[in-house]
Amino acid sequence: MRIAIVAPSTPIEPALAETVTKIAAASHPDAELLFHPQCFLRHDHFAGDDATRQAALVEVANDPGIDAIWFARGGYGSCRIAADALASMTPAARRKRWLGYSDAGFLLAGLYSMGFREVAHGPMPQDARREGGAAAVERALGWLLTSDPGVLEPSLDTRPAAAFNITVLSQLLGTPLEPNLAGHVLMLEEVSEHAYRTDRALFHLTENPSIRRVAGIRMGRFSLVPDNDPDFGRTPEEVVRYWCERSGIAYLGPADIGHDAGNLVVPFGARGQ
Amino acid sequence: MRIAIVAPSTPIEPALAETVTKIAAASHPDAELLFHPQCFLRHDHFAGDDATRQAALVEVANDPGIDAIWFARGGYGSCRIAADALASMTPAARRKRWLGYSDAGFLLAGLYSMGFREVAHGPMPQDARREGGAAAVERALGWLLTSDPGVLEPSLDTRPAAAFNITVLSQLLGTPLEPNLAGHVLMLEEVSEHAYRTDRALFHLTENPSIRRVAGIRMGRFSLVPDNDPDFGRTPEEVVRYWCERSGIAYLGPADIGHDAGNLVVPFGARGQ
Repeated sequence: MRIAIVAPSTPIEPALAETVTKIAAASHPDAELLFHPQCFLRHDHFAGDDATRQAALVEVANDPGIDAIWFARGGYGSCRIAADALASMTPAARRKRWLGYSDAGFLLAGLYSMGFREVAHGPMPQDARREGGAAAVERALGWLLTSDPGVLEPSLDTRPAAAFNITVLSQLLGTPLEPNLAGHVLMLEEVSEHAYRTDRALFHLTENPSIRRVAGIRMGRFSLVPDNDPDFGRTPEEVVRYWCERSGIAYLGPADIGHDAGNLVVPFGARGQ
Repeated sequence: MRIAIVAPSTPIEPALAETVTKIAAASHPDAELLFHPQCFLRHDHFAGDDATRQAALVEVANDPGIDAIWFARGGYGSCRIAADALASMTPAARRKRWLGYSDAGFLLAGLYSMGFREVAHGPMPQDARREGGAAAVERALGWLLTSDPGVLEPSLDTRPAAAFNITVLSQLLGTPLEPNLAGHVLMLEEVSEHAYRTDRALFHLTENPSIRRVAGIRMGRFSLVPDNDPDFGRTPEEVVRYWCERSGIAYLGPADIGHDAGNLVVPFGARGQ
């Protein structure tokens, strides 16, 4: 299986590509990883300017010789190219698997909105830098290559699911990238955001009629939360439960996802699609 | 004129109330400032718990002996009480003037959505702590007492206007607090946000169909922008112009508003309403 890696947001280092390639060779020798040179470009905040990132993404998306697209890392930048890139995709793109999380959520949302069937929230190459990162890479490959049920978030059931970083989902609500999440189990995670910001973003999400149609919310990990001054007085779980209760959205418990090496895979949509 | 000050977000110090009262006594002796005791309460992040802040706001809003409500300061918290507070308001609230900015934008938005005619974005008591803050307080009182045209943002013309902090407006899009801004000159300001966050929030705003209906966007000040690593490569003005151009929203130039003592007053809606 040929897996192309592109970086629609921020760049990775060539050494990281070598590390991930070695992990893959040992655990999944059938995986041929193709790191697009765009992954290593630097243009201000981004892995190349908008046109370059978009061209690389469209190139691999429409290449019939490639089976899957794996987003290199998050950061920021995919929302700037998502709409135009998606508009350029051909049926060859639709047959691929797509994997990423964090800022890549803008693209996952757009792809899923367009009816792509093999879109998932899960580890990215950059996760190899984390403690325990090899397991994250192997988990990603397990989904990309064989849909290994052992890499999936364990609460997944017959209901359709989706997973997002809270800030990313908040910032795509109402835009053409927003998918229809009616009836979905929505898993949410967050990193490096103050408690008051997460509270505000959950106000935004749960007061939006489109989000109120989800089947319920599961709460992934909230990591690296900066100190609130004064203390916010509520744990992340209390914050999620509060907004669920207030909005009438079912709180379904924890989800085993987050900005860490333990991030399990959440395919979008119904299982077995 | 009797002006009630409440704090729907975070608390102020009693010493600040004394300072503002002295400024008002010297410049606007007709202004009777009534600092609600709720302004000084502390409950975790907030100026009292939700029920207490909401009760204080509704109490002064519906008091027929009070002519205006002046929000004490921003911070975070008004979105938690806005909907319930607004639902409790009587015609006495509708006859008042309302002034604030920053986090108070959640309430300004909701009040304006409900058809309140005397809602404005402008200085708050907390601004007395800024360099040149007495002028900000006097400017606020100039609007609250006499609609002094000298305190208004100078670009205001016959088109209806509104002004918001970018993050606050982003976080109320699609919620019941969102006002209809079709045909409005929309003035935006920001404080203490990284360039990439502002870029992302402007994606969110300008990709929302409701915002695309504005007459155009004016750009207030973007202050205390933390360093981006690496440099974002675009000035705030370039970021605003980019998203306006991309979305087909007219960029109308600067607006004399921001998180500073120079923040001029922007009444919501058409002039002379």
